[in-house]
Amino acid sequence: MSRTSRDVVDLGTLIVQGDDRQGIVAAVSSLLAKYGANIVSLDQHSTDPAGGRFFQRTTFHLEDLPAQIPSLSDELDNVLGMLGQSYRLTEARKPKRVAIMVSKTDHCLLDLLWRQRRGEIHMNVGMVIANHPDLGDDVRGFGIPFIHIPVNRASRAQAEAEQLKLLTDNVDLVVLARYMQILSGDFLQQVGVPVINIHHSFLPAFIGAGPYQKAKDRGVKLIGATAHYVTEDLDEGPIIEQDVVRVSHVETAAELQRRGADVERQVLSRAVAWHCEDRVIRDGNQTVVF
Amino acid sequence: MSRTSRDVVDLGTLIVQGDDRQGIVAAVSSLLAKYGANIVSLDQHSTDPAGGRFFQRTTFHLEDLPAQIPSLSDELDNVLGMLGQSYRLTEARKPKRVAIMVSKTDHCLLDLLWRQRRGEIHMNVGMVIANHPDLGDDVRGFGIPFIHIPVNRASRAQAEAEQLKLLTDNVDLVVLARYMQILSGDFLQQVGVPVINIHHSFLPAFIGAGPYQKAKDRGVKLIGATAHYVTEDLDEGPIIEQDVVRVSHVETAAELQRRGADVERQVLSRAVAWHCEDRVIRDGNQTVVF
Amino acid sequence: MSRTSRDVVDLGTLIVQGDDRQGIVAAVSSLLAKYGANIVSLDQHSTDPAGGRFFQRTTFHLEDLPAQIPSLSDELDNVLGMLGQSYRLTEARKPKRVAIMVSKTDHCLLDLLWRQRRGEIHMNVGMVIANHPDLGDDVRGFGIPFIHIPVNRASRAQAEAEQLKLLTDNVDLVVLARYMQILSGDFLQQVGVPVINIHHSFLPAFIGAGPYQKAKDRGVKLIGATAHYVTEDLDEGPIIEQDVVRVSHVETAAELQRRGADVERQVLSRAVAWHCEDRVIRDGNQTVVF
Amino acid sequence: MSRTSRDVVDLGTLIVQGDDRQGIVAAVSSLLAKYGANIVSLDQHSTDPAGGRFFQRTTFHLEDLPAQIPSLSDELDNVLGMLGQSYRLTEARKPKRVAIMVSKTDHCLLDLLWRQRRGEIHMNVGMVIANHPDLGDDVRGFGIPFIHIPVNRASRAQAEAEQLKLLTDNVDLVVLARYMQILSGDFLQQVGVPVINIHHSFLPAFIGAGPYQKAKDRGVKLIGATAHYVTEDLDEGPIIEQDVVRVSHVETAAELQRRGADVERQVLSRAVAWHCEDRVIRDGNQTVVF
Repeated sequence: MSRTSRDVVDLGTLIVQGDDRQGIVAAVSSLLAKYGANIVSLDQHSTDPAGGRFFQRTTFHLEDLPAQIPSLSDELDNVLGMLGQSYRLTEARKPKRVAIMVSKTDHCLLDLLWRQRRGEIHMNVGMVIANHPDLGDDVRGFGIPFIHIPVNRASRAQAEAEQLKLLTDNVDLVVLARYMQILSGDFLQQVGVPVINIHHSFLPAFIGAGPYQKAKDRGVKLIGATAHYVTEDLDEGPIIEQDVVRVSHVETAAELQRRGADVERQVLSRAVAWHCEDRVIRDGNQTVVF
Repeated sequence: MSRTSRDVVDLGTLIVQGDDRQGIVAAVSSLLAKYGANIVSLDQHSTDPAGGRFFQRTTFHLEDLPAQIPSLSDELDNVLGMLGQSYRLTEARKPKRVAIMVSKTDHCLLDLLWRQRRGEIHMNVGMVIANHPDLGDDVRGFGIPFIHIPVNRASRAQAEAEQLKLLTDNVDLVVLARYMQILSGDFLQQVGVPVINIHHSFLPAFIGAGPYQKAKDRGVKLIGATAHYVTEDLDEGPIIEQDVVRVSHVETAAELQRRGADVERQVLSRAVAWHCEDRVIRDGNQTVVF
Repeated sequence: MSRTSRDVVDLGTLIVQGDDRQGIVAAVSSLLAKYGANIVSLDQHSTDPAGGRFFQRTTFHLEDLPAQIPSLSDELDNVLGMLGQSYRLTEARKPKRVAIMVSKTDHCLLDLLWRQRRGEIHMNVGMVIANHPDLGDDVRGFGIPFIHIPVNRASRAQAEAEQLKLLTDNVDLVVLARYMQILSGDFLQQVGVPVINIHHSFLPAFIGAGPYQKAKDRGVKLIGATAHYVTEDLDEGPIIEQDVVRVSHVETAAELQRRGADVERQVLSRAVAWHCEDRVIRDGNQTVVF
Repeated sequence: MSRTSRDVVDLGTLIVQGDDRQGIVAAVSSLLAKYGANIVSLDQHSTDPAGGRFFQRTTFHLEDLPAQIPSLSDELDNVLGMLGQSYRLTEARKPKRVAIMVSKTDHCLLDLLWRQRRGEIHMNVGMVIANHPDLGDDVRGFGIPFIHIPVNRASRAQAEAEQLKLLTDNVDLVVLARYMQILSGDFLQQVGVPVINIHHSFLPAFIGAGPYQKAKDRGVKLIGATAHYVTEDLDEGPIIEQDVVRVSHVETAAELQRRGADVERQVLSRAVAWHCEDRVIRDGNQTVVF
């Protein structure tokens, strides 16, 4: 998956999805050809040869793209509307605006901020919101605002209102980088952008709290982590990425947690990077990752 | 984990386990030294620095081992009894006597038989028992008896009686190589030897039937397999080995099943090989694998 | 990578490659749309956004495909000729005709034959040619002709002539499944079909003979295997697939060889399966694997 | 591999190595038993059942360890001297004193410093020496001295003298965390402590400079990294740890480098952590990692 092309000013990404039918690829590629666009990459997936759902991600180079977008969008509305497809057209040069929410542990947060600094994840982290003050220095050291909003059972509604005030219209994505609080259904509806969470187990094994102790008790030989979109059903949202690491009888639960932290940060960073490149398409409770 | 040493006639394996206390390693190694044995490998594990459980596996070379075993056992009884440890002493040259139970699918069965033939698993498969006749030719091609004992809900008790008659005193291990029947608690008690099963998922995810369809529905990004000792609690026995393979939105449930079959046969073969080398020690519902 | 679709009678695979230029995707998909074909999957790769090489693999469903192929080919000649692209059009229902060449070790051979029997690799193995007689019973047990052609330094030219007589016009692919002989440049030219080899190391590490001993001597912590197309430069042909397994100081060279055998059979089987689904495109000394 | 036990004040680690002979395990464990020590873990390896080299790592808990060390050492001198073994006895509570040398890239450096801060690697990084000034702010943000010593062909000898002045008697380990300079044989001799380097390829593949471009040109399907002790033979020192990540035709050489950076930092961090726990024993040009 080429991640360099985003540097090109005139690079566009077109996501198309809908019920599968003949001629979608031809319609899109012909329209792009008409505009003189060069297709740089094209990924396509149908869930079934007949009667399934259709997904396509196309990146293309088109001279003077920003100026052409209005006209291109009009034609896509028309062409894809007739084919019953919805679409999303983005400019690769525009990074996603991201807020990260954390509690006290630093491993996922630092990995994300460091990758942003290296240019590995195409995002601008505009703020870090935390329910504990511990990570303030680290975040501000990257030149990023850190906002401490304490949360307890009584204050949750008010805390979420504060969070929403900061987030609304300001971000394209919220990342929960080991934010140890459950967000309400109201929050998820009002925030209006995708929320990605890292769960510290290989879902659906060890749903809920304390997965490393549960893994130790069960005597598993691999432990894992899962990045998923957050839905109202805890730990049940569409999975973006998972990975595991081998363990044995030797590790204590505390050591499993340390080993797991390495997997967590990698899985979350990959999921966020792919999301920010418009590689992840939701398909009900599953994802297509191109 | 050296697997060559089993060829040596005078190689012994000593498993010691019990509540942890000082001096066990010294007692065992001094006793072996007294006999003139050379320790070839020694693995030791304590579940806790203080007050935990103790496990030790020692392989040693002792001139004329078969003749020395009675006397050595007497001394071990004495020394380890005082230390509150139980032990198991085996001669590496003696392969485990194994029965494999199967239904219709061949992948786990063939992998075990191939590896036996190549000398990779130190076992003698004395019989294959199947509830379907399909795999008879394959098994007999290896020169191994294949016994077809049909099973249905009504006949289960009788079938188990037939199986037990074949197994009792004849085998050291029963391997369920995708045997799609549940064995009764009575059977497990009467068979009197360990039973290893391969479950076609990464336990504890997707317990029970149809794990590949469940995995597809949940949209996981890795699928796995688990080899475990069989207990009366289905899919809850001590895990010996697990592994996973990466999948994506592309695979259908049928393709997940095919990818999974590769993981199943490897995981089961590894678990059986380790068991046959006395590398696996049960610790309640967990295992120590040296 | 869906492997079920090959069962469909009217499924075609079109491979296009050449210097990258605008409009290739559109031209192909429009032509297919004109015929009423439904694109089932489409993979595309350009080595460079500008001035690179272009590769596309399209699978499509077209009613009455066999009858339409002549006309479709004519139009492809025309359209792709103008765009400077070469192409290859195959019917998914036709399995590749394969010859396997072996020496004495069975692990790669058995894995291939067994996967063919299970329908996992879309090929017909028409013959197995061996320079030793050892594996005859195994091969004939699968109902496949086994031809023993001894080879020594003096007889190599004559042996190759015999082999060529068997292979010419009869196979689409030759697989060297641990065939421990070097094929001459003459043979490779005359055989006229691709030849896939499994090398028992992670190339380019440990080129040449005795890689497991070399790996042991160097003290590596992973060992691997490499499937590649055979060219006149030994161990230098385009790599199709590679994989590794973790090892440690414990394993002897003989044990590394046994561990490596597992990797070899998997890597070779994957490479052959992908080749037989027309997923592998050669690009100079590299491959594109869709 | 338990990493918690180092917190215990009275925990000792004893490394024994030499030519294999009978009775070493018994002698060591009896001596420890005599002192009332409790063996917490014991790993043992013989390169050959007969006439090989012997390695043992024992961790033990001994009341009032610091006070007992002189007497225990005397007895070890005596007992192990008679058995022809050398030994190393360390207190687990004492972290290794480490200097890190870097050039401009931050990924390995930051991973080490993060892990030190989280208590994952049992070391005290006393200084970071760099031939470029770029990483000064990052390092000083951790409260660690950063010393910039420019190096060019003409100034190398003088630079090494400066480095040696800083390092001598002050550190137990030097880590080259992508330090893009070759250290002279003189330096290695005079520094008097082990030096660990991270090589950005799966050695012995792609020895020397530019491994990612070489990997791209060769079309490999996996790329890796290797942590090894530095010897005078560039890229030929004993390997401590290696790992790989899967790549494909899609990645450019620049993207391989980015993917590889993730592997590099993990491999180096693991190697340094293991070294700091006295888990790595050199055996000629190989290592035993317990």
